[in-house]
Amino acid sequence: MALLAEYQAQRASLIGNDRSLRRENLTAHLRSDIELQADRIVRQIRAKEAETIWKEEHPSIPHPFPGMEFLTGRSIIMKTRLFEILSKMPKGALLHAHMDATVNAGYLLQIALKYPAMHVRIHKPLSLDNLSTNLPEFRCLPQEEFSSLQSLTDPSYPLGSWVPLRNAREYFASELGGVEGFDKWVVGSMTINPSEAYGTHNTITKIWQKFGSTFITSTGLIRVKPIYEEYIREFFRTSIEDGISYIEVRINFLYKFMFGADGQENIPHRDWLVAVDEAVKDVQAEMAKQGRANEFLGVKIIYSTIRFITPEELEWYLEDCIALKKEFPHLIAGFDLVGDENVYKPLIHYAEQLLRFRERVEKEKLDIPFIFHAGETLGDGTEADDNLYDAILLGTKRIGHGYSLIKHPKLIEICREKGIAIEVCPISNEILRLTSSMPMHPLPAVLNNGVPVALCSDDPSVFGNMGLTFDYYQVLAASEITGLSTLGALARDSIEYSTLDGEGKKAALIEFERRWTEFVQWVVAEYE
Amino acid sequence: MALLAEYQAQRASLIGNDRSLRRENLTAHLRSDIELQADRIVRQIRAKEAETIWKEEHPSIPHPFPGMEFLTGRSIIMKTRLFEILSKMPKGALLHAHMDATVNAGYLLQIALKYPAMHVRIHKPLSLDNLSTNLPEFRCLPQEEFSSLQSLTDPSYPLGSWVPLRNAREYFASELGGVEGFDKWVVGSMTINPSEAYGTHNTITKIWQKFGSTFITSTGLIRVKPIYEEYIREFFRTSIEDGISYIEVRINFLYKFMFGADGQENIPHRDWLVAVDEAVKDVQAEMAKQGRANEFLGVKIIYSTIRFITPEELEWYLEDCIALKKEFPHLIAGFDLVGDENVYKPLIHYAEQLLRFRERVEKEKLDIPFIFHAGETLGDGTEADDNLYDAILLGTKRIGHGYSLIKHPKLIEICREKGIAIEVCPISNEILRLTSSMPMHPLPAVLNNGVPVALCSDDPSVFGNMGLTFDYYQVLAASEITGLSTLGALARDSIEYSTLDGEGKKAALIEFERRWTEFVQWVVAEYE
Repeated sequence: MALLAEYQAQRASLIGNDRSLRRENLTAHLRSDIELQADRIVRQIRAKEAETIWKEEHPSIPHPFPGMEFLTGRSIIMKTRLFEILSKMPKGALLHAHMDATVNAGYLLQIALKYPAMHVRIHKPLSLDNLSTNLPEFRCLPQEEFSSLQSLTDPSYPLGSWVPLRNAREYFASELGGVEGFDKWVVGSMTINPSEAYGTHNTITKIWQKFGSTFITSTGLIRVKPIYEEYIREFFRTSIEDGISYIEVRINFLYKFMFGADGQENIPHRDWLVAVDEAVKDVQAEMAKQGRANEFLGVKIIYSTIRFITPEELEWYLEDCIALKKEFPHLIAGFDLVGDENVYKPLIHYAEQLLRFRERVEKEKLDIPFIFHAGETLGDGTEADDNLYDAILLGTKRIGHGYSLIKHPKLIEICREKGIAIEVCPISNEILRLTSSMPMHPLPAVLNNGVPVALCSDDPSVFGNMGLTFDYYQVLAASEITGLSTLGALARDSIEYSTLDGEGKKAALIEFERRWTEFVQWVVAEYE
Repeated sequence: MALLAEYQAQRASLIGNDRSLRRENLTAHLRSDIELQADRIVRQIRAKEAETIWKEEHPSIPHPFPGMEFLTGRSIIMKTRLFEILSKMPKGALLHAHMDATVNAGYLLQIALKYPAMHVRIHKPLSLDNLSTNLPEFRCLPQEEFSSLQSLTDPSYPLGSWVPLRNAREYFASELGGVEGFDKWVVGSMTINPSEAYGTHNTITKIWQKFGSTFITSTGLIRVKPIYEEYIREFFRTSIEDGISYIEVRINFLYKFMFGADGQENIPHRDWLVAVDEAVKDVQAEMAKQGRANEFLGVKIIYSTIRFITPEELEWYLEDCIALKKEFPHLIAGFDLVGDENVYKPLIHYAEQLLRFRERVEKEKLDIPFIFHAGETLGDGTEADDNLYDAILLGTKRIGHGYSLIKHPKLIEICREKGIAIEVCPISNEILRLTSSMPMHPLPAVLNNGVPVALCSDDPSVFGNMGLTFDYYQVLAASEITGLSTLGALARDSIEYSTLDGEGKKAALIEFERRWTEFVQWVVAEYE
């Protein structure tokens, strides 16, 4: 029937037209046959797993489906071939993660236990009923203040007094689970569990309260120089094992000092950077020894402070950032303001300081772009949503989250045309209740509009999405359009929209292509 | 500071530019001072109620917030001034509702109880445990088959046998709640309750199973001519009371016959239309008697059948639709295929028949536009999502739901430029789990893209969103950009994109403006 044939042709053309802005389609002509084959294989596996493992009965998971709530579906994800494949995929760069939330909480506790200076206290008696809300407070004490108390949970414990961390663990009341109960309590205070995300704290306001508390707790452990040094090494190593080859990490410089091993809170910001520099060099050396030097291209820092400070206080941080940039030009990649946009101050509140900063860095030829969090909200026309206007007008290089970007046709056009990439954090968005599951996430709309995107993990120690494999999984599982080639384009864009300079970026892209080719060959060899 | 002033000017211009496509902004210059004043008052009330009633403790509502899950938040909504205001607002046209799901289920049961021919049966013994899944089956029987059984719940009841409806109710076991328990059981079988939507059936697949079952149950009551006649009158009357002045209702013509009062299943489709015609005339006469003739401009029918039929079966329905259009040209407004897009056949499955139909109606100069459901899905590139391509290519006049439209930049452009309006059903989308709450709904993005939208209730008897006030409420509560003027533009567009002809539309718009002016004056007089 001629009418039908003509219709089919029109249809194919309309679909092609509708998807023509997608970034993997811009380079479709460059795709190798082997990549096309790998993409096909992955689609078949996805379709099969959607009908098998995702439709099976899973004890205690009432409604499994691909792209479901991460904290509930994680155990199923880890059984899939799709996950196995993605865990081997080269991920390019990780562009949006908060340093203090990058290493497994249990591992952090293990590091801290090595230091006798580490102490813990509580202000209310612990009971089975309040374990999840009665949070530990940690501190590194100077030797003269070391405590000899044995237990946090003994009736004789003087509330508010410091107890050595090891003692607190060893003598944790057996009715609260003993040593195991202690570990669970501490880890629980630094992570979000499914019954919190999907039950007791199932709104944006409530989950941010829990989320914020995890940082207040963990900072007592992390902001201690010897622990920090181990912590950031572990972050780099585990990232590399997940296929991440370069990192731009946000460090929160709100506190002006870190604790030294001697329990004095006197380690200034410049020493934090020295620590990062040394850790990078050490891990690079380790990798070189294993013949894997090209798997780790380095780390830069996005200087961050929290958007509840006053504009006057911000001036101090901007100066501090400039000073650090001058001393460590290779380390400081940009500037950001972080924290709950729905609650704290909008960018416009700081416009004068930020505009002056921009003038100043331009004049001094300092390369400190803004890389702002903006639009991490469900608000429509709220201050948090309007942050997108300011981020873009202030010249942000990328946008952290940009969850509400899809509402803004003009801003989408600007991002596409000026190449402002969006740091999309799928699992973070879901756990922080911006979306209930991946199929509801606006990412497909952003991709179809041709806006460059880098997938990011945000706060993996809190959410349990270590590395980038889980985030890539959720994106792949929830779409029939997205395929392996889409994920490749996302990984490529994470390098393309990084702050790497011309030469560095070129080298990173060449190395990525080499690993990508190896990867798609492996997919075909293994699963064809 | 000149820099800041310049920045503020740029910012205002960017925001204006970003929102310039919004349909209320296209006509901003026409807005009266009194409307602006009413809009301001409503914004103030919204802001106040967000901080008061929505932040108070409500027993058994753990996380209240504006735009929250409708079935849980409904009782709070009804206490607000915003709701009181919107219930008085003229709504224009209702363009997307399924006739069989428009009248309060309890009221439907009351009508049915008037007819001794109405019987009910079950196939498994009823118990407290299975009340929500052991559904009643209703039928109108011919007199010679009337049953003399007394009770559905007596141990002696022969399963599968018909019991007169009145008896079943009167003798419903007291341990199941007696008469009240019967009513609850029947109403529960035709409605979705919060623990189903947000608990036991909290995925799209599961909620559609429950949703589908409500129609299977209610059809036994509705598809009986004398009941139908009362049912549709009640629908029209309650719509008018809610400020709806014109209706395009989808009627499902899948069953070829309705039952007559004599229990014979022999009332053909043409008599269904006669019934509608008469009901419209009667209600218009009632309104005229009350001096309110201009509040009810009439009803048209969108001929619908279900998208699980074969293409060959579709041909019969298309012929039937044409025959009815010829006999009732003023009643038949368009053609649609309904049912779960994620499960049933996509439009492309019927392309040949639909293309031929279109040729034929063009040749015969019959005015039967397609008004297709499409994209009522979270799928990305699934058949349900792709229905949007076919709906548009087949020339749909409007799109039912179009939930996934926001993913499609080219289709958005086409809808805006060709004036294809989207029938957005906010509460339906939320209860059917496309979105978890209104702040997650893509409507703000659709509005900012300048696509015309009509708000609709879809299946209010199942969802409890009778009229349009609840849907308008949810939209207004969940945005800081949307105001009374936005709602006015939505109502105006419901008339503009209806199938009313030139004269009829002009008259409807004039009448709307008259009522709108009255309304905004009332808002100012009452709440200033």
